[in-house]
Amino acid sequence: MPTPIRISVPIEVRYIETDQMGRVHHASYVAWMEVARTRLCAESGFSYAEIEAGGHFLMVVGLELRYSGAALYGDTVRVDCWVSELGSRTLRFGYEIFRGEQRVTSGSTYHVWVERANGKPCSMPAMLREPFARLAGRL
Amino acid sequence: MPTPIRISVPIEVRYIETDQMGRVHHASYVAWMEVARTRLCAESGFSYAEIEAGGHFLMVVGLELRYSGAALYGDTVRVDCWVSELGSRTLRFGYEIFRGEQRVTSGSTYHVWVERANGKPCSMPAMLREPFARLAGRL
Amino acid sequence: MPTPIRISVPIEVRYIETDQMGRVHHASYVAWMEVARTRLCAESGFSYAEIEAGGHFLMVVGLELRYSGAALYGDTVRVDCWVSELGSRTLRFGYEIFRGEQRVTSGSTYHVWVERANGKPCSMPAMLREPFARLAGRL
Amino acid sequence: MPTPIRISVPIEVRYIETDQMGRVHHASYVAWMEVARTRLCAESGFSYAEIEAGGHFLMVVGLELRYSGAALYGDTVRVDCWVSELGSRTLRFGYEIFRGEQRVTSGSTYHVWVERANGKPCSMPAMLREPFARLAGRL
Repeated sequence: MPTPIRISVPIEVRYIETDQMGRVHHASYVAWMEVARTRLCAESGFSYAEIEAGGHFLMVVGLELRYSGAALYGDTVRVDCWVSELGSRTLRFGYEIFRGEQRVTSGSTYHVWVERANGKPCSMPAMLREPFARLAGRL
Repeated sequence: MPTPIRISVPIEVRYIETDQMGRVHHASYVAWMEVARTRLCAESGFSYAEIEAGGHFLMVVGLELRYSGAALYGDTVRVDCWVSELGSRTLRFGYEIFRGEQRVTSGSTYHVWVERANGKPCSMPAMLREPFARLAGRL
Repeated sequence: MPTPIRISVPIEVRYIETDQMGRVHHASYVAWMEVARTRLCAESGFSYAEIEAGGHFLMVVGLELRYSGAALYGDTVRVDCWVSELGSRTLRFGYEIFRGEQRVTSGSTYHVWVERANGKPCSMPAMLREPFARLAGRL
Repeated sequence: MPTPIRISVPIEVRYIETDQMGRVHHASYVAWMEVARTRLCAESGFSYAEIEAGGHFLMVVGLELRYSGAALYGDTVRVDCWVSELGSRTLRFGYEIFRGEQRVTSGSTYHVWVERANGKPCSMPAMLREPFARLAGRL
């Protein structure tokens, strides 16, 4: 069974990310997941900024989160991210967010590759096949 | 089978809600769903601000979105929201977001009732039982 | 002395716009000002989306806010916006934000016209001169 | 003349912080300034989270930004922050944001101390006087 590369990104909670419940707003985690995904992409050898510049978007078409705890202002959380499914035209990332030892959120995002020029779904760019297979733990 | 009350909220896309793909960022929909949920709660006769002031939070513990299209700056989208599951201690809302006739996003949020004073899960506040049963189409 | 056209936009405070102080976060007002600016532009007969599609950006180069009160979740605030300075290459908008009768924020944004194709500052697009002079109360 | 302590915080631009102009939205800088302010406060020996827990808010009452360039997704900007004015009841912070060698934004925020219990303006908490005088370069 393949073991995907799992990266961990420390993220300092921003005051603006809290709400009047006195904890991090549930949408803020979506932004953190994106930060971790950016960092994981960079592990492939191609930054997501380069991938876009090269003519492709990795468009989000699905999003799922489960909250089992709360992050607070003052915390530095740890956001883990890995490739959980690798298709020829799609990609799923898994995420876990920790506050110390406690997992406060887990989730996934589902993506399709899109050609920037025409906005149409397409296959994964050829140059990324090997690097992403490596991220996914298949090589 | 119960037919829940379904509200529709028009929301004008904000420039800040777009990203460099030239369309609305996927996390912006989460904020819109919250606006619609607020509006639906008010239909119960109790605004969510009053519910909180009364000592309870309706905490988000799950979130799910599927994107089938894109909203753009310049659009006024329509966000539909309804109670899709009503438990004694939990609540699920369903959402559909439309750009004209096209459904661009659908999703749900899952919630537990929490006592503000101690942060512990609790039953739905008694005063809300009938109003929310009405929202859920059970009365 | 010219009297600019002043528009008033009602904005319902979003939960996500609050922070753990229990009131609206100071950056949320910046988003609201943008909503009002969008609405004022539309009064010119050209929506900002059309202006951009036509090849120009009205880029923000300065921002100023003073806070004299707080908006709360549950409020529908009123955001007023008008053209306060009209140059051949620059534009300033004024803003006042009210919670009921109380002005909670006032501010301004300063802008330059930029050609979308090359990112360079430019003169106000010719087609907008008369409409914006009208907004500014000069016609 | 006092030389305040100046901290520099590297911040990786988030995709969500961009807009359809293809660059960082002007409001995103406000969030970054807050991150740097949090970091500077911590230099005093008291984190802002502790200051709040201790019963005080450092409320924003003024905000000023000038943009002379743009940060892009893919950048790690540097946000500098220092105490620029230290009053007995007020505080001003200065900020400069750099993309490589280029300063893209500069600004300031103006604050008053507020008692958390009653929301009233107050003097700087006694325990912070010396630490903040040190930050301001007066000791």
